[in-house]
Amino acid sequence: MLAQTQFFHYSGDLRLQSGATLGPITIAYETYGTLNADKSNAILICHAWSGDAHVAGYYSDDDKKVGWWDDAVGPGKAFDTGKYFVVCSNVLGGCAGSTGPSSINPQTGKPYALTFPIVTIADMVEAQRLLTDHLGIGQWLSVTGGSMGGMQALQWAVSYPDRLKTAIVLASTARLSPQTIALNEVPRQCIYADPNWNKGNYYDGPRPDSGLAVARMIGHITFLSDASMRDKFGRRLRNNTDYGYSFEAEFEVESYLNYRGFSFTKRFDANSFLYLSKAMDYFDLSNGLPSLADAFRKTSAKFLVMSYTSDWLYPSWQSKELVRALLQNDIDATYVEIDSDYGHDAFLLEVDRLAELARDFLKRVN
Amino acid sequence: MLAQTQFFHYSGDLRLQSGATLGPITIAYETYGTLNADKSNAILICHAWSGDAHVAGYYSDDDKKVGWWDDAVGPGKAFDTGKYFVVCSNVLGGCAGSTGPSSINPQTGKPYALTFPIVTIADMVEAQRLLTDHLGIGQWLSVTGGSMGGMQALQWAVSYPDRLKTAIVLASTARLSPQTIALNEVPRQCIYADPNWNKGNYYDGPRPDSGLAVARMIGHITFLSDASMRDKFGRRLRNNTDYGYSFEAEFEVESYLNYRGFSFTKRFDANSFLYLSKAMDYFDLSNGLPSLADAFRKTSAKFLVMSYTSDWLYPSWQSKELVRALLQNDIDATYVEIDSDYGHDAFLLEVDRLAELARDFLKRVN
Repeated sequence: MLAQTQFFHYSGDLRLQSGATLGPITIAYETYGTLNADKSNAILICHAWSGDAHVAGYYSDDDKKVGWWDDAVGPGKAFDTGKYFVVCSNVLGGCAGSTGPSSINPQTGKPYALTFPIVTIADMVEAQRLLTDHLGIGQWLSVTGGSMGGMQALQWAVSYPDRLKTAIVLASTARLSPQTIALNEVPRQCIYADPNWNKGNYYDGPRPDSGLAVARMIGHITFLSDASMRDKFGRRLRNNTDYGYSFEAEFEVESYLNYRGFSFTKRFDANSFLYLSKAMDYFDLSNGLPSLADAFRKTSAKFLVMSYTSDWLYPSWQSKELVRALLQNDIDATYVEIDSDYGHDAFLLEVDRLAELARDFLKRVN
Repeated sequence: MLAQTQFFHYSGDLRLQSGATLGPITIAYETYGTLNADKSNAILICHAWSGDAHVAGYYSDDDKKVGWWDDAVGPGKAFDTGKYFVVCSNVLGGCAGSTGPSSINPQTGKPYALTFPIVTIADMVEAQRLLTDHLGIGQWLSVTGGSMGGMQALQWAVSYPDRLKTAIVLASTARLSPQTIALNEVPRQCIYADPNWNKGNYYDGPRPDSGLAVARMIGHITFLSDASMRDKFGRRLRNNTDYGYSFEAEFEVESYLNYRGFSFTKRFDANSFLYLSKAMDYFDLSNGLPSLADAFRKTSAKFLVMSYTSDWLYPSWQSKELVRALLQNDIDATYVEIDSDYGHDAFLLEVDRLAELARDFLKRVN
């Protein structure tokens, strides 16, 4: 079965958390597996910062690049498409088919650029809720995701408590820490500092590739861990047996970052990068409430929360804080801290443990 | 007693680790306290990446800015200038009085810029050794420093084992890890990406302030810790009571980084920043040897090594690795891991513990 991107068009206006309105909107999504008769086997996978709707499989027989979480989504995998109807949609504000800053504003005929309104995790979930209605799904068996995807799963449980039975939240948090805000702000500054960015108006000229590439390099450092970098690169040199005493990128870790940074610019829009980073910065389920526990007063979903020992971007203490808030509401919450050296990337890579835990969890709550 | 910068000029050529030569050179330094008759009370303080020779005190009666480690250097302090003759010199490659890429190349009458040769930690130490000879100091009672300063202290113990009695190494490492190389490479990329950098030739035009500012912001994230950022900033907003839904820097942590980044450009040269980062990347005392322990075969200095629990730039495992290598050579080494939330900055801030430990250590070994 080949993957295929579909598009949901909503002609109305979306009322955003900021008070602004946005419409019409398009949401790109893909589905895998078959929705059963009583529509009780649907799982929504929410993607992270740089993800898209293409969570698994290939688009064509000669497609070289598999979906971003193919290890976890497919027949017999953690999210078993033989059993479940899996949906993944590109977030609002993104650049892979859904309406975002690079989309054409129908009122001007030009890309929105920075006239695109700031969107939040709650706004992303609101757009997904419209898609959910469109698909005729009353209640998701599960809403799941890692990192920014986990934030969306949490937001679902807060915004639409009766529209999901469970949430599986990986390597995520209920509110961004100042360190993570800092690690979002500096990449933004990299983009702002690129003259090609031109305050967001670059769609008919050269793109801010240098700024975006460096921004992404910072990201890659935060996705790995001290231990995984030692294991993956050590102090190995790329070509030489001894130091070159120049400013060339000669350590393997340098070439890796440069390669990943610049290849990212081929597939991602710098303005989308900025908007999604702000959406995360604003994410704080406790905002305006006496405590985080108050955020989950109406939540009825059952939770599986997973964190990873070497993840320093969304460290385990944040998952523990979340689980405490859930337990204070007598919510059925299972917490597992996975021992892993893979850093934040562990949520994408530790799929065997995920498969085992998700299978048991979904069996138990179903 | 007011601080005063002095300049040591060396008219010969320095043979660098790369094989290149550099000369003549100037080294800026400051001294505090009085050298005793048998010249046995001299302590060399080596500064970190952005430091300079001005380690303590004021330059004039109305000087507002105190030296960078004034809390630790002065009468009755950790490095007691009532007892010790304290010397601090600006590193080779720096931009605060010592010869570096912003210095005039006497052969061309223009700033070296990128024609300046790559210098290493060993080259910095070689320049300090010339200064040591000039000052008539046969053996330092101690060579000390944190971070890149600690690397210089270690290099002294390897390059000139009989020229120091002790080394006090804070928040440092015997070899840079790939994570730290990555955290140096990305700031370099920020500078390269600034068109004002112009491959290092900016001394008669606009300076690459944007690139250098963003580069420094990355540094500031690595100097703090997750915990200290929560304590210092939390998710507090600077002006508003609620989110502004814009790209303005509205979280306190964002304004802090922006302020620190841009104020750094007023006092630091972007090319020096690049050269010092490379000097650190190349630092690996085990390079070309079977093991790190082999680096210290001829070392006779006694060591006090300190690391800080929340320092993730030079985490404790690196100090432990160093201490193991010292102990394998039967070197007298004391290791203390200080419980601190201040992150890498702890070496500058936890001065009470340092004072106590350095006092006892220097008393014991003297």
